[in-house]
Amino acid sequence: MTGPRYTPLVASLPATVPFVGPEAQERANGRPFKARLGANENVFGPSPRAIAAMSEASAGQWMYGDPESHDLRTALAAQHGIRPQNIVVGEGIDGLLGYLARMLVEPGDTVVTSDGAYPTFNYHVAGFGGVLHKVPYTGDHEDPAALFAKAAEVGAKIVYLANPDNPMGTWHKGADIVAAMDTLPDDTLLILDEAYVEFAPEGTAAEVDIEDPRLIRMRTFSKAYGMAGARVGYALGAEPLITAFNKIRNHFGMNRAAQIGALAALQDQDYLKQTVANVAAARTRITAIAAKNGLSALPSATNFVAVDCGQDGTFARRVLTELVSRGLFVRMPFVAPQDRCIRISAGTPNDLNLLETVLPQALSAARAG
Amino acid sequence: MTGPRYTPLVASLPATVPFVGPEAQERANGRPFKARLGANENVFGPSPRAIAAMSEASAGQWMYGDPESHDLRTALAAQHGIRPQNIVVGEGIDGLLGYLARMLVEPGDTVVTSDGAYPTFNYHVAGFGGVLHKVPYTGDHEDPAALFAKAAEVGAKIVYLANPDNPMGTWHKGADIVAAMDTLPDDTLLILDEAYVEFAPEGTAAEVDIEDPRLIRMRTFSKAYGMAGARVGYALGAEPLITAFNKIRNHFGMNRAAQIGALAALQDQDYLKQTVANVAAARTRITAIAAKNGLSALPSATNFVAVDCGQDGTFARRVLTELVSRGLFVRMPFVAPQDRCIRISAGTPNDLNLLETVLPQALSAARAG
Repeated sequence: MTGPRYTPLVASLPATVPFVGPEAQERANGRPFKARLGANENVFGPSPRAIAAMSEASAGQWMYGDPESHDLRTALAAQHGIRPQNIVVGEGIDGLLGYLARMLVEPGDTVVTSDGAYPTFNYHVAGFGGVLHKVPYTGDHEDPAALFAKAAEVGAKIVYLANPDNPMGTWHKGADIVAAMDTLPDDTLLILDEAYVEFAPEGTAAEVDIEDPRLIRMRTFSKAYGMAGARVGYALGAEPLITAFNKIRNHFGMNRAAQIGALAALQDQDYLKQTVANVAAARTRITAIAAKNGLSALPSATNFVAVDCGQDGTFARRVLTELVSRGLFVRMPFVAPQDRCIRISAGTPNDLNLLETVLPQALSAARAG
Repeated sequence: MTGPRYTPLVASLPATVPFVGPEAQERANGRPFKARLGANENVFGPSPRAIAAMSEASAGQWMYGDPESHDLRTALAAQHGIRPQNIVVGEGIDGLLGYLARMLVEPGDTVVTSDGAYPTFNYHVAGFGGVLHKVPYTGDHEDPAALFAKAAEVGAKIVYLANPDNPMGTWHKGADIVAAMDTLPDDTLLILDEAYVEFAPEGTAAEVDIEDPRLIRMRTFSKAYGMAGARVGYALGAEPLITAFNKIRNHFGMNRAAQIGALAALQDQDYLKQTVANVAAARTRITAIAAKNGLSALPSATNFVAVDCGQDGTFARRVLTELVSRGLFVRMPFVAPQDRCIRISAGTPNDLNLLETVLPQALSAARAG
C-alpha cells in the first residue's frame, strides 16, 4: 500500500506545533498549573453579559452560526466607523492569518517579519511554501522602517508587524507606523496585528484609510475581551481584500455561541475599561515583583510583561523551567537577545501572589543550576 | 496602488459560497422563518448534559482550548476501539475537508465525487485547484463501484463518498462499500463521510482496518448530537495521515466550550438514542405528509427526507420557493434528476404541523405558476 499522495510541499513540511498548550504540559507534569500566565490569556475573563449570552446560546447550538457573521460585523462596523464590507470575522487571528497566507503565498514567495515575532504567522507562511526574511528587533521594539525596507528589498508579498508587539509588549504610535508606510511598496500587504491594542495608550491604533490596499489590521476577542477559547478574530481592510476571503474561507466555520458572545462583549465597553484597568494594575505589580528581585520589566502596552532576567537565554530558560516546576505556567521569547526575558501574563491578585512567592525561589535555583 | 498580489489560483477563484445561510434569507425576506428545516440541523438539540456543560464552560472561555483535544479524542478512541493517534478533531467536517484538500490537492490534480454530492467538498477541492470528475447517482444512490472505477481511470488523489448520502438520504451497507474498495487504487484516498451514520440502520458504518491508508472517515457532532453551531467534527484514519494534519491545521482553532460540550454529549448515549427515535418519527411523518399530497418520499437513513415532487427540477424549485415564502426553510438537490426532490430536515411536531399546512398550498401555487 502506497498511501495518500501528499503535495510535495506538505510532504516536505515538518510536523511542528507553534506552541505546546498548557494542558499538554499539565498532562506531562501529572498535575495542573496553579496559575496560567503563559499564553497571554485574559484571566479577568469575558464580560458577565458575554458569559450570560454564551450560556443562553448553548441550547441553540443545534443551529449553524450565521456564515456572514452579519450582526457582529454590523456592530463592529459601527464601532470602527466603517462598513461591514470592510470586516471579515474568522476563527481567531490565527485562522485569518492562515487564510491570508493561502491567498497570497506560493512556494518561493517572500514574506517579511521580525525575528522572534509571532510563530503562528511563520507557521502559516511556511505551510504555503513562503520564504521568510526576518528583521531583528531594535531596542526590543519591532522596527517598522527596517521591516518595510526589507520588504522593498526582497519584493515581499506580505510584511507582518504586531503593534503592540508580542512577545516584548513594546509599541509604536500608530501615526509613526502610518508615516513609515510611505516606504512600503504598493504591492506589499502589511498585516498589522493589533491583537493587544485595547490595552495600549491612546494613539497606538493606526489611523488609516480603510480602503488603503496595502494594509490589513487584525483584531480579536481573545485578549482584552477575555474570550480566547471562543475563537473570534476579525480583520479590517479594503473591500476587495476582505471580499477575497470569501473565495476560500470556511464559511460555516464560526461557532454560533461565540458570535453571540462576542456581540455581547462588544456591547459592554464598561467591562472592557474595567479589564484594562485590572490589567494595568497587574502589570504594575509584576514590575514591582520583578524589581524586588533585582530584575527589570519592560514597559508594556499589552496584558503581559517581559521581565529581563539580566543574563542570557540559557539563564532565562532555567528561570522559566523553575517557575513551571512550581506550578506557574509562563513562556518566553524564542530569539536572542529578547530571550533574556520571560513573559508573564497579567494575573489575578492570587496568581501574582504565587509569582511573588516562587520568583525568588526560581531565581535562586536558576543561579545555582 | 496595485494592491496585494494574490496567487494565480486565488485570483482565478470565483467568490462563491457553498450555501446561503437561513439568516441571510431572513434578512432578505424581512422576516424570520417559522421552521428551520433546510440545513439538516438537528432540531432536537444537544443533550441537556451538553447544554449544561457548554453553559458552565462559558465563564472559562478566557482560556484557549486544548490544541490536542486530548480528552475528547481519548473518549472517542474508547468509543471506536482505536487509539487517539487515529483521530483528529477539527472545526466541523467542513474544516477537516479543507485541510485534506490542502494536504493532497495541487492545481490539476484529479478528484472524484458524485454529481450532486456535497458542494462544500467541491468548494475546497476547487479552492486548491483540483479538477473534479463527477459520477452520476445510480437510482438516487451514490455508486461506490462507479466512483472507484472513475478514480482508477483518472488517477484520482481523492474520491469522496457520503454514506448515508446527502442530499438524497440513501445509503449502502458498510460491508458493501468495504467490498467495493477492492477496486480502489492503493494511492487514492477515500473520504468516507459518515456525518449521518448515527441515524442509519446497524451495519451502515464501514468496518475497516483503522490503519488502512486508503481510507479516512468523517464524523461530526453537528447532526445526531445536535451541535452544528459548536463546530466539532472528527476524522478516523491511519496514524500517518492523522499526524499529517498537524503540519497544517490551525492548532488553536477549536472552541473550548465546544470541546467540553462534545465530550458531555458523547457521554449521553441515552439522549442520542432518544434523538434517533425522534428523528425516525419525524421521517415517518414527513413521508406521510408527502403521501397525503400525492408525493413519494425516498427512504432515508439520515435526519432529512428527500421528497419527490413528481416532476422536474423547475417544478421542485417552484415548490421550494413557495414553501420558503410561507416561512418554511428547506433546500433541494442541485443536479438533475435528483433535483426533482425537495429536502426536508426532520422537524419538531410543530415544525411538521407547518409543513402539513403549507405543503398543499405550495403545491397548488407551484402547479398554477
